[in-house]
Amino acid sequence: MNDGLEILPVRGIGDVTAGDDLAELITKAAPWLANGDVLVVTSKIVSKAEGRLVEVPADGPERDDARVRVLDSETARVVARRGETRIVQTHHGFVMAAAGIDASNVDKTHLVLLPADPDASAHRLRADLAARGLDVAVIVSDTMGRAWRNGLTDVALGAAGIEALLDHRGQIDPYGNELSLTQMAVVDELSAAAELVKGKCDRVPVAVVRGYPYRPDTTGAGASALIRDTESDMFRLGTAEARAEGLEQAAYLSDDVAVRETGRDGIGTAYNRIAEIVTAGTGITATASTFRLTAAGPAPADLLRLGADAHRLRAALAADGLTSGIEFDDDGVTINFGERA
Amino acid sequence: MNDGLEILPVRGIGDVTAGDDLAELITKAAPWLANGDVLVVTSKIVSKAEGRLVEVPADGPERDDARVRVLDSETARVVARRGETRIVQTHHGFVMAAAGIDASNVDKTHLVLLPADPDASAHRLRADLAARGLDVAVIVSDTMGRAWRNGLTDVALGAAGIEALLDHRGQIDPYGNELSLTQMAVVDELSAAAELVKGKCDRVPVAVVRGYPYRPDTTGAGASALIRDTESDMFRLGTAEARAEGLEQAAYLSDDVAVRETGRDGIGTAYNRIAEIVTAGTGITATASTFRLTAAGPAPADLLRLGADAHRLRAALAADGLTSGIEFDDDGVTINFGERA
Repeated sequence: MNDGLEILPVRGIGDVTAGDDLAELITKAAPWLANGDVLVVTSKIVSKAEGRLVEVPADGPERDDARVRVLDSETARVVARRGETRIVQTHHGFVMAAAGIDASNVDKTHLVLLPADPDASAHRLRADLAARGLDVAVIVSDTMGRAWRNGLTDVALGAAGIEALLDHRGQIDPYGNELSLTQMAVVDELSAAAELVKGKCDRVPVAVVRGYPYRPDTTGAGASALIRDTESDMFRLGTAEARAEGLEQAAYLSDDVAVRETGRDGIGTAYNRIAEIVTAGTGITATASTFRLTAAGPAPADLLRLGADAHRLRAALAADGLTSGIEFDDDGVTINFGERA
Repeated sequence: MNDGLEILPVRGIGDVTAGDDLAELITKAAPWLANGDVLVVTSKIVSKAEGRLVEVPADGPERDDARVRVLDSETARVVARRGETRIVQTHHGFVMAAAGIDASNVDKTHLVLLPADPDASAHRLRADLAARGLDVAVIVSDTMGRAWRNGLTDVALGAAGIEALLDHRGQIDPYGNELSLTQMAVVDELSAAAELVKGKCDRVPVAVVRGYPYRPDTTGAGASALIRDTESDMFRLGTAEARAEGLEQAAYLSDDVAVRETGRDGIGTAYNRIAEIVTAGTGITATASTFRLTAAGPAPADLLRLGADAHRLRAALAADGLTSGIEFDDDGVTINFGERA
């Protein structure tokens, strides 16, 4: 029982305003803070101390307009929208509802923005505490939603003096299996643990985790190590937004392609799609790099329909990952396989 | 300092095998377990005790094939794929890489599946502990990845005796603002806190959170309360999958529609898209419910191109949320607005 953790609330911090010295406030409220502790500070008081507030009307449509303007300015890109909800990626890289802008625990004429650079905020606070002779890790935390699961949890926006990820990769379990994928987001877990002793309305914006054998941050990456890069992000857009993007892609497929042979699989896939899509009676001939389609009948309506079918076919091929081009002549259409020219 | 939490590891549980009595093993290893504690049990030992193991070849392509078969059987639907990675929704409703199937901390000839019903597992263990005179909340936890953030955290798959979500909605902060959206996933935060004293390879599959004033589970929903329903899930598919779905939708747009007038916005949107898409010289006339397009020239190739353009236009309108139908005749095409017939 002697090697567990303690999660300790820091009470009595009171209102924080621009210019306040957080190290001063925290050490006064928690004179028991000790070397090796992990200090978890709610981003809101960091933002307030740093003056990251925006003045807005207290109510009415002017307030709504002002909120939208603030949200726009905090948004790097919109990830998903539904009704009033906007999930965006912030300029920091965090994906959060409403860019983490908060109207709670602040008077009605202000909105609180996230700290401009939460890792830098954590570093400053850690340095200020070091100047007081305290060697503690610092995490700046905030409350976030997640995909697929109801409810919010606290996670780390910034960190200093602690490695954000604990890498188990390469370790061997007792059965001789090498752990291949396990990197634990320990600063997120510490933030979540700290939230359990905080509270949304009762002004406990800081908690201390005592007894956690954290690894010093050797890379200096802080919590930015937790931001998934674009390349590995499989959920860059909401489903509705990505689906609309697919429809949009279908509308603007380029007719030009650098013609190349497609493999057996490509030809098979294309034949299946053609069978599903083209009107009965359409003429079909194929080579390894092209399909040639001729209209089911001689009437102008038959040509119009073949043109539409050919474009349907190209959208379906794109859904299958096949790039196509098209040429129109007076006898029919040629669908070419290859690479975008 | 006296109202914090303790997170206590439970050591010495040892190997768990099918049929083991977890209440017995845990109370033996943690005779200090007390009323009001939250017991967080790694799902793996629950699965092992419940015999949720599948025999697989120790190596070779046979092992890979067997893994795929097991994954298929644990999958309710595929959410996203990339390379070897498959993120799926399990039959329980959890969205997890590889359906939570685990090959670590088990001998090479077995895979460990998630418990069949983790809430029921938590309830059973809680009841077994109650039979020993202990009133504790029980959480069955597992390690999961998240969208947008690197690193894994532990979350709750099952819970008994504790409300999974702590609802702050309706509370008033010190500034008089009503909290509108805040429901905290406390069982996930407790799972994360517990993970900090566990370890991937050193056999600490159980931890105790002491001092957390949890609310009894009044609804009986357990951790299933954390599974987001389809309706509110904005990330039901990976971006690539949803984009492909959009392309697929474009390929199979129905020609039929119950024709209805579209609003001013619809007409404006359609005009913008037409201007972007159709070939110069295309004839355009409009009513409130239809656009009529005629070919830019008399040649068959012009008709083929108009057919393709008309379908491009319909895909673009669908991207804008506008439902259209199409009719072909010997003088051109009519694009109808309305609702899917």
